[in-house]
Amino acid sequence: MNSLLNGKKIVIVGLGLIGGSVARGLSALNADMDIVGVGRNSLTLQNAVDDGSIASYSTDLKVACKDADLVLIAVPSLSVEQVFSDLKEVVTDNMVITDAASVKEVVVGSAQRIFGRIPPGFVPGHPIAGSEHSGYQASFPELYRNRKVILTPLEASAPEAVSLVTAMWGSLGAEVVEMDVARHDAVLAATSHLPHLLAFALVDTLSQQGESEEIFRYAAGGFRDFTRIASSDPHMWRDIFLANGQATANVLDLYIEDLGRLRAAMLDKNAEVLMETFRRAKKSRDNFMAMLSDKEE
Amino acid sequence: MNSLLNGKKIVIVGLGLIGGSVARGLSALNADMDIVGVGRNSLTLQNAVDDGSIASYSTDLKVACKDADLVLIAVPSLSVEQVFSDLKEVVTDNMVITDAASVKEVVVGSAQRIFGRIPPGFVPGHPIAGSEHSGYQASFPELYRNRKVILTPLEASAPEAVSLVTAMWGSLGAEVVEMDVARHDAVLAATSHLPHLLAFALVDTLSQQGESEEIFRYAAGGFRDFTRIASSDPHMWRDIFLANGQATANVLDLYIEDLGRLRAAMLDKNAEVLMETFRRAKKSRDNFMAMLSDKEE
Repeated sequence: MNSLLNGKKIVIVGLGLIGGSVARGLSALNADMDIVGVGRNSLTLQNAVDDGSIASYSTDLKVACKDADLVLIAVPSLSVEQVFSDLKEVVTDNMVITDAASVKEVVVGSAQRIFGRIPPGFVPGHPIAGSEHSGYQASFPELYRNRKVILTPLEASAPEAVSLVTAMWGSLGAEVVEMDVARHDAVLAATSHLPHLLAFALVDTLSQQGESEEIFRYAAGGFRDFTRIASSDPHMWRDIFLANGQATANVLDLYIEDLGRLRAAMLDKNAEVLMETFRRAKKSRDNFMAMLSDKEE
Repeated sequence: MNSLLNGKKIVIVGLGLIGGSVARGLSALNADMDIVGVGRNSLTLQNAVDDGSIASYSTDLKVACKDADLVLIAVPSLSVEQVFSDLKEVVTDNMVITDAASVKEVVVGSAQRIFGRIPPGFVPGHPIAGSEHSGYQASFPELYRNRKVILTPLEASAPEAVSLVTAMWGSLGAEVVEMDVARHDAVLAATSHLPHLLAFALVDTLSQQGESEEIFRYAAGGFRDFTRIASSDPHMWRDIFLANGQATANVLDLYIEDLGRLRAAMLDKNAEVLMETFRRAKKSRDNFMAMLSDKEE
């Protein structure tokens, strides 16, 4: 384990899939850290204490964060602002604060609004890991192993703060990379937010067709994989699309344009356009898989 | 094994994923059947003989099909017509013919055109099974176990022919259901053809973005699952969209309408519309999974 974490008090706000997996992963290191949970549901928090994932908990953020070295905020994107509000009274320049929200611009805006400036300890972050399952019961210590975590440090972020947040994710087996806030939101709009929107919309469109049950009955494995992400947490995704609507709409527009081109090719029986598109897509997708498997080796 | 298959000569035209898996599955029954392969690639056919999946092969359809009891045509949707042409010289009223194409109306039209009528032995069919991998090397004997096979018998189809085709798929562990031709094409447009179009288009759209490699680098598991079907065989899918373009365009139009509604909700920050849609989609998708797991038990 990175020695930067030695003796640190780490507070995890929100023990869902993301925060719960951090708690489980850190506690599995059996290191000298004081891991404290914050949430609204005492039952979940007590479960986490019983599991050994956290040492203690509080439902009062201010109490839990007093003297914290590192605060990880793992709540839906639009709930981060309320956490900042609660944190305002106890924040110090030495307190390192990071988050795990899927949209970064909105979180940076919240910080600026609530604190009146970017606190030097604040380092926005986003682990590229998850599952269609949600909640503490779905969390597991290996969630971040071989996954990427994107940090989007700001001009005001202290280098020591970036190092501590990097050390925390690194200790969970993640690869930490840094990126510009706007670039993060655009890249994630393309690779994560748009696919989720498409999957939610497809299931929704089909379920509103007449005899939708019959339709689903004849769906095969490809459909199951394609729509897996439509089982994701609606609250978290509502926040993401409210927070990253413009970037998602931008790439959605390109996508709908491409769909229109394929629609015309189908109806005009333009075999070449279809073949060329599918070949190009298959090649890109196969390359993407090869890149992933190189990484996982 | 169903006794109807006893002593039968079964010819499989096309030893790709679909035909190869039938050959492997039937030969694994170790029953009294003469399984013959037809294809263009002698190397693949010889491999299948060496594997024990087929007893013999020919690259000449007419030679192979002489005296056949059952001919399964497992080639892309728009190649079936050429197979019918070759078959025309040797077809008899007792020869049972079925196919595995993903679109049924186009295949029925081909039969009518080539034979001048629907031969009494012809029973169109479609196994709802597959993979993003293609070719004989991807085939395996259990592909059809617990999968559905849809037959779309025509008025002219002899009941004995339907029974024999049903027996063949049943012996591979599939559940055989019957459906009207047009209904089949509409249901499959929604549950299979549209999702494949969406996945091909998404990978294509993203791969044409600037810095597409960086974009793919930050894609996570959800994206991998969502785009798995974009690695499917381009030739097979080109044929499907040429053959079922209208039905696919019909459901695509509904889908694009739904996307437009969600796009507006994102930009108008209409939290209720997003939440309601995602909740409804999650519920439908979770129900769909429950239905699948009931079936698989």
